[in-house]
Amino acid sequence: MSYRVLLRTIGATMLLEAVVLLMMAGVSLLYRENALPFLITIGILLAVGYPLSRMKTRDRAFFSREGYVTVAVVWLVLSAFGALPFFINGGFGNYINCFFEAVSGFTTTGSSILTDIESLPKGILMWRSTTHVIGGMGILVLVAAIIPNGESRAMHMMRAEMPGPTAGKLVPRLSQSNKILYGMYFGLIMLEIISLKIAGVCLYECITISFSTAGTGGFAVTNDSLAGYSAAVEIIVSIYMLAFSLNFALYFLLITGKLKQIWRDQEFRLFFLIVLLAVLFVSLDIRQVYGSYRTGLRHTLFTLASTCSTTGFVVTDYDKLWPTFSKCIVLLLTLTGACAGSTGGGIKVSRLLILVKSVKKEVRQIIHPRSVNVIRVDDGPQNEAMVHSVLRFFPAYVFLFIIGVLLVSLNGFDFTTTFSSVLTCIGNVGPGLGVCGPCGNFADFSNFSKIILSLMMLIGRLEVMPILVLLAPNSWTRS
Amino acid sequence: MSYRVLLRTIGATMLLEAVVLLMMAGVSLLYRENALPFLITIGILLAVGYPLSRMKTRDRAFFSREGYVTVAVVWLVLSAFGALPFFINGGFGNYINCFFEAVSGFTTTGSSILTDIESLPKGILMWRSTTHVIGGMGILVLVAAIIPNGESRAMHMMRAEMPGPTAGKLVPRLSQSNKILYGMYFGLIMLEIISLKIAGVCLYECITISFSTAGTGGFAVTNDSLAGYSAAVEIIVSIYMLAFSLNFALYFLLITGKLKQIWRDQEFRLFFLIVLLAVLFVSLDIRQVYGSYRTGLRHTLFTLASTCSTTGFVVTDYDKLWPTFSKCIVLLLTLTGACAGSTGGGIKVSRLLILVKSVKKEVRQIIHPRSVNVIRVDDGPQNEAMVHSVLRFFPAYVFLFIIGVLLVSLNGFDFTTTFSSVLTCIGNVGPGLGVCGPCGNFADFSNFSKIILSLMMLIGRLEVMPILVLLAPNSWTRS
Repeated sequence: MSYRVLLRTIGATMLLEAVVLLMMAGVSLLYRENALPFLITIGILLAVGYPLSRMKTRDRAFFSREGYVTVAVVWLVLSAFGALPFFINGGFGNYINCFFEAVSGFTTTGSSILTDIESLPKGILMWRSTTHVIGGMGILVLVAAIIPNGESRAMHMMRAEMPGPTAGKLVPRLSQSNKILYGMYFGLIMLEIISLKIAGVCLYECITISFSTAGTGGFAVTNDSLAGYSAAVEIIVSIYMLAFSLNFALYFLLITGKLKQIWRDQEFRLFFLIVLLAVLFVSLDIRQVYGSYRTGLRHTLFTLASTCSTTGFVVTDYDKLWPTFSKCIVLLLTLTGACAGSTGGGIKVSRLLILVKSVKKEVRQIIHPRSVNVIRVDDGPQNEAMVHSVLRFFPAYVFLFIIGVLLVSLNGFDFTTTFSSVLTCIGNVGPGLGVCGPCGNFADFSNFSKIILSLMMLIGRLEVMPILVLLAPNSWTRS
Repeated sequence: MSYRVLLRTIGATMLLEAVVLLMMAGVSLLYRENALPFLITIGILLAVGYPLSRMKTRDRAFFSREGYVTVAVVWLVLSAFGALPFFINGGFGNYINCFFEAVSGFTTTGSSILTDIESLPKGILMWRSTTHVIGGMGILVLVAAIIPNGESRAMHMMRAEMPGPTAGKLVPRLSQSNKILYGMYFGLIMLEIISLKIAGVCLYECITISFSTAGTGGFAVTNDSLAGYSAAVEIIVSIYMLAFSLNFALYFLLITGKLKQIWRDQEFRLFFLIVLLAVLFVSLDIRQVYGSYRTGLRHTLFTLASTCSTTGFVVTDYDKLWPTFSKCIVLLLTLTGACAGSTGGGIKVSRLLILVKSVKKEVRQIIHPRSVNVIRVDDGPQNEAMVHSVLRFFPAYVFLFIIGVLLVSLNGFDFTTTFSSVLTCIGNVGPGLGVCGPCGNFADFSNFSKIILSLMMLIGRLEVMPILVLLAPNSWTRS
């Protein structure tokens, strides 16, 4: 393990966090609020981060191991410091609560321990939503876009941080590719802000809602999430939640006019099909619940878009109002998640696709033992190593999920609450069922559960392997 | 597909079922009960089965495809006819109830739709427990042990029917190997009957309990399962439930004096460790529940042995009395199940072992990308094809489980009931939580749910692939 490269990267990201917090301090001052929580944190970040970032290193060895460990440590460090403004400001309870909230923000989960969100200053809430934007696209992707840092080194980090089984590049040069990604990301955010402004939302809420949608996070600035907004806002946010669940490479194809290739993308088509079928079944299942079928359809679209994008915004208490079948579909979408290369969480539709194709291959192999079977996605045969990596990802995900359920069950909540709390955290969605349901929160969970759930969020966002590599003892030997 | 071989095998197994039912008719007459339900069924079985079994075939093509399809069809046919005595006798409600009960018996699940078991005749209850014995070791294993049928053909069927990732042979000749297996099986059953007799249980109950333990099924002849028996009976049955969860090859090693090899078996050691840890944690977790720690420990051992062996006998209402943590451990053991080559259900400990080792390999590959990693079980490198087959088995199992949950959720029970009912059926355990909990049953489930749950039991017992191959359209083309 090349410690100096690791420390230098940590330093650089800390400086970056300080820059973002400086903007938050500006927001606080704009609203004539106390900017001290931000300024103190910035001071600490600079004091620790600057010397680290200046560290000299001649270490050239940076492989996937270093990439995974760096990503895991960077996310932990940024969350630990990102929790400080919450802690210094107060209103969040103990530091574990603040850490939980920060991890929930960066991992774009959106689970909250807050019971009265509206009582908090606007600057703090803006920082809370901003963590979604940073975590959504990836912290190290941002670092790589800004600081030129060696192509292969950045690629190793990217691979560990980007959601989905493969980390693709849009253009041959990685830093260029990341700039395009962030460009499209901010472009979409701007579009959503404008759409919401036209629908009559005040600018501050336009920005926070758009930030939370962009990272598919789900932190809102009102106590009842998005339930208090108009039908138009509900539809706009539904569309953008789905938009941010798509692979960003598709937008690049859209911009460069390669429309045919978008439809050829099997993950996109499967995602489309899943959402369509889920909306159809649920809207039929809940047709009696609301006064009109139209309201039901709107709430269905919003709730399912919120779930499969793993955003976690809420407009209706589906835990109380919906039948079990619809609730199971919600949990199922939590597991599936969004597309690879998006800001969404879950297992990812492309992994699902590969898993289903693998099972089909196994059946085909039994029926025709001598035939040669290759798994094809998007008309091309899949790399065997990648398929096996997906096949190993799945049990690892399920095992860690089960361990999470066991540890959180010590908290003594009912099975539905326990099960759904871990599922919503590892899937980076936000609300679960029962105590942590759409109208509940995580305030009543024990400190131990909050730490376990924070870890689940990180495991989900970083897709298992970085955390496992971090915990493996032989990752830390000097090679 | 060679239909004639398929039909002939179906015929042979129907005749075998008729022979077993004739014994049941004897039991009925012994207790001066109405033997007609058995005699009518025997008549039907002979009328259909005899001509089928006499069918001439020159078809030599019998590969794994034929093996899988035959196993799936045979299990469906035997369950369909095995349900007839229940249906003709009455007291079970409609035919779907009877089918559910028969599938539950053959698959050694032990889930029941009966609310008043004690009101039924002794012959019918004996048949109910006997289905566990037949299904536990495998119907076609029995056929292969009795009727010499071509080594490779029998091996293809064995592979599809035997629990676990590999079907091993104890001695070079398969029919000999199966005779030894059945010999040890009946030997263990005799030992349990004698042990229970010494503990003061009446012979009829000794036999039914032992039959249900042997198949790790769980049908009892009293309404409160085994709650009404003495502490000695509880301990004896605990031990035998664990004994029937072990790979029967270990008993062969025991008989032939190869004791060292038993301890070298990694699956055995992992199973031992899982049970030990589970008993430790749960007995500590529930120490306040019962008057004394000793009672708690006894109930813990019994309940966990009943769950991990996937038997499903009940001595205490753990759903009501135990904390969530302990209930989660029970559900977890439902998923894990017993050892390969036993009569138990679930995913099997050996598959778990291979999955964990695969995840470890993936982590190692990231840390040392250039090292050659081979998965070793029992000191030997594992066949790559087998490891990948296990890796594909797991998502298939989980997908089918999820589809089951979705379909049963239409029934409108709470999430815990829905989730645990499907889990207990696919794991072939018996009781779940909530409505279908240790003191509940499946009587209130809809006909649709009962059909889905019957299918889940078959998927669990036959370990996914035979059912998938049966449903694949290109299995049925003539090759």
